[in-house]
Amino acid sequence: MSQAPAISPTREKDFPEWYQQVVRAADLAENSEVRGCMVIKPWGYGLWENIQRQLDVKFKETGHVNAYFPLLIPLSYLEKEAQHAEGFATECAVVTHHRLEVQKQPDGTTKMIPTGKLEEPFVIRPTSETIIGAAFARWVQSYRDLPLLINQWANVMRWEMRPRLFLRTAEFLWQEGHTAHETAAEAIDETKLMHKVYADFLRNHLAIPVIPGAKTENERFPGAVDTYTVEAMVQDRKAIQAGTSHYLGTNFSKAANIQFLGRDNTKQLAHTTSWGVSTRLIGTLIMAHGDDDGVIIPPRVAPHQIVILPVTPKADTRQEVIDSCEALAKTLRTQTFHGEPLRVHVDKRDLQGGAKNWEWIKKGVPLRLEMGPRDITSRTVAVCRRDQGPKAKDFIPKEELIRDITEKLQDIQDALLKRATEMRDANMKKLDTLDEFKAFFAEGGPGGFALMHWAGSNEEEDKIAKDMKITIRCIPISDEFVEEGKCFLTGKPSSRRVVFARSY
Amino acid sequence: MSQAPAISPTREKDFPEWYQQVVRAADLAENSEVRGCMVIKPWGYGLWENIQRQLDVKFKETGHVNAYFPLLIPLSYLEKEAQHAEGFATECAVVTHHRLEVQKQPDGTTKMIPTGKLEEPFVIRPTSETIIGAAFARWVQSYRDLPLLINQWANVMRWEMRPRLFLRTAEFLWQEGHTAHETAAEAIDETKLMHKVYADFLRNHLAIPVIPGAKTENERFPGAVDTYTVEAMVQDRKAIQAGTSHYLGTNFSKAANIQFLGRDNTKQLAHTTSWGVSTRLIGTLIMAHGDDDGVIIPPRVAPHQIVILPVTPKADTRQEVIDSCEALAKTLRTQTFHGEPLRVHVDKRDLQGGAKNWEWIKKGVPLRLEMGPRDITSRTVAVCRRDQGPKAKDFIPKEELIRDITEKLQDIQDALLKRATEMRDANMKKLDTLDEFKAFFAEGGPGGFALMHWAGSNEEEDKIAKDMKITIRCIPISDEFVEEGKCFLTGKPSSRRVVFARSY
Repeated sequence: MSQAPAISPTREKDFPEWYQQVVRAADLAENSEVRGCMVIKPWGYGLWENIQRQLDVKFKETGHVNAYFPLLIPLSYLEKEAQHAEGFATECAVVTHHRLEVQKQPDGTTKMIPTGKLEEPFVIRPTSETIIGAAFARWVQSYRDLPLLINQWANVMRWEMRPRLFLRTAEFLWQEGHTAHETAAEAIDETKLMHKVYADFLRNHLAIPVIPGAKTENERFPGAVDTYTVEAMVQDRKAIQAGTSHYLGTNFSKAANIQFLGRDNTKQLAHTTSWGVSTRLIGTLIMAHGDDDGVIIPPRVAPHQIVILPVTPKADTRQEVIDSCEALAKTLRTQTFHGEPLRVHVDKRDLQGGAKNWEWIKKGVPLRLEMGPRDITSRTVAVCRRDQGPKAKDFIPKEELIRDITEKLQDIQDALLKRATEMRDANMKKLDTLDEFKAFFAEGGPGGFALMHWAGSNEEEDKIAKDMKITIRCIPISDEFVEEGKCFLTGKPSSRRVVFARSY
Repeated sequence: MSQAPAISPTREKDFPEWYQQVVRAADLAENSEVRGCMVIKPWGYGLWENIQRQLDVKFKETGHVNAYFPLLIPLSYLEKEAQHAEGFATECAVVTHHRLEVQKQPDGTTKMIPTGKLEEPFVIRPTSETIIGAAFARWVQSYRDLPLLINQWANVMRWEMRPRLFLRTAEFLWQEGHTAHETAAEAIDETKLMHKVYADFLRNHLAIPVIPGAKTENERFPGAVDTYTVEAMVQDRKAIQAGTSHYLGTNFSKAANIQFLGRDNTKQLAHTTSWGVSTRLIGTLIMAHGDDDGVIIPPRVAPHQIVILPVTPKADTRQEVIDSCEALAKTLRTQTFHGEPLRVHVDKRDLQGGAKNWEWIKKGVPLRLEMGPRDITSRTVAVCRRDQGPKAKDFIPKEELIRDITEKLQDIQDALLKRATEMRDANMKKLDTLDEFKAFFAEGGPGGFALMHWAGSNEEEDKIAKDMKITIRCIPISDEFVEEGKCFLTGKPSSRRVVFARSY
């Protein structure tokens, strides 16, 4: 019996629309009536909580502490760093008033009129370099105050014209690391360290293989000396910039006046960095792992790693089955997976079994376990792996399942990474000529990551971006990409291939 | 040798100024250049992270899940619930534009001008009943969709005219629970349950005894049918409202149209609740437990519960001492206190010992341990309890310390609660006449919580608030306050005493 996919359209048919439908079917988020702002629903937020907690451990292991800085940024702060300001200025929420006047209307309703005009307007932070820089300037006097290693978990706003749930929303949640150092070398080490933390997190927690690399000058963060990125390929073969780490040189410390008395007794400017990942990771995860039945969440970050579905065909055995399921859940919860207690949910709702089952398939729970009266007698459990399709079902002795449960979760985690890696590798091609490049990205062409020799100018890079909507995603740091050759556009010598792709 | 207090002025001399100085000396937070908005520094944020994590466990144990809703609220949402709007409308940050135009000035600097006027302005959420109500209206169709038990961790803004760090800031961090129920009875149970969660949390985690009770109509949350509060007394004998839980009846569901098809097949309005605590808890904690040497943080929520200070008089034994301290920290970290691994920090900075010691005293670390070369030989540790003053020091055999460490932390936790309870009870008086009431609150009078019989009108209550700055903090729920008597103002019969006090 063939089963129609739960999501319509399929990925093949219309990937962007498939994405919207998966987000809805998995109950991850929805659009609000506030343009471009999403509501992150409990299932999506649970995923974010896991990402947040696990990343936070890594930040603390690398010596960072959390703090919190104001939501509002005075315009004068933005004006101090012109290049930065221009990069963000065009799409900000601007606060101009601090009071509302309540006006009763003749029909009994209420109107509210903004009053209390501010002398200096504020923007809602699109990123916090300027406001955190102002605090750092107060905190740093001597080289002994350095390094400052701070992270903030926060909401930020950028007035996006074409919002898309998780991938590009006006308001989003993120973390932004901000550090200040005595020397350029230390700041560059920090930038690279956090870049590696991101690459490892994507790979080991989200099961997404990324290509870590540097951005070209054209693609850098406004005001940065160097931007490092982790680029993921998703199933329509486009790239997603999943996280960035910036070496800011002394550009921001100059603007904010982060000065310190150095070891040599001279006044010096601190070298700063910033780095961030956001709820965009959730969009990347969906596009990387989802199938035509919904999302597939890697076990390490799944809100429920295991859902137990009691099979209760008869009223008189219902309670017994539920008790057995609860007992199994309790046993499983005593085990840990990567240091965290197993997250096991028993779905006791009195709904039709097929409906419940499909709900968890669409939500991407890694493992579904079914137990009914016969399974209790035979001491077996029906085990369904989400990554093996809706019909995958193994009957496994209960004791064996309990013994092997974390191994099974790791198998799923590994299988997702393997599948995503194979997908990426199959769609990453070394090309040498402009014709090959054009054919690769032509409509109906294979598409993906084109590994190209490049020695063009910024203007030539820009022209490709404008004409073909293809950008250099990164200059990979891995030695695998080192190779003598000639730029596919200019013929100039090049010693390393870069990654070109279309992107979100 | 007597030691001058580390904080000037003392609590006795000028409590409000003492508070500001403690916050500064403990490096908890500071004012930013954005009026009324604070920077929460790492030590203060670490405290908030512990409060947040521990409360979150309690919310989840009581069946709630987290989600996230937009920062911006359309004015039209506020206009729907007039009473609510009027309660919040006067002090909101209003977003009116969504773009900035960068203007290069002749002198090379940059000016930024707000452009892109919005058709409908937004306010930055002062609280989220209206925007979450709009989401609930989409989510609820049938009684089967209820209850909805949601919590949000978020930042909110209220344009405060007289800000004070933690206690009253324009932006603050909080959690807001929002739930929708089928019946009034269920919603009232939820309101009371969360009220109890708060009272227990304050008592057991923050070591602050509170008086749980209902607000009078005058003091209710705008739009609420009933507001429950937990009222703490701090050391200047004023009250702080530390958390509130509101039964909103159908007021908000009517405004937002949260309707469902009931069991009887009729359309019904959901009954909703909301409840919240904020970074104000940190201000309450400081004012409840601090002394003239700084803050004292209860062990359960302290960012470091234990700081180990290596005593290194000679260079040649320095490394050995540090290694011993690290080894002790490692051993201690294997133990748990209330289910969380012990938070132990070794302060290895090459600073003068006295300076380091005083830093941790001011920051309120519950236990300081000192180890030097002689202690290593004698296998003892010098143990300093923060709650027993700066000179308290016991020499304890290391093995005994390791064995008893969690007991010692619990002793400190209990001692803080006991001290705060005694302080409160000593300053809580049953009074019966207006003269007694006036004398109690007169300048130079004892002040504190006046337990009064009350049967006055809302207008009479208002007049006391205006004339004397004294309000009814709550109508306590405990039976201890049940007693026949006569209102001290009107002489009308009353069957329960209420709490009058000055407050923050």
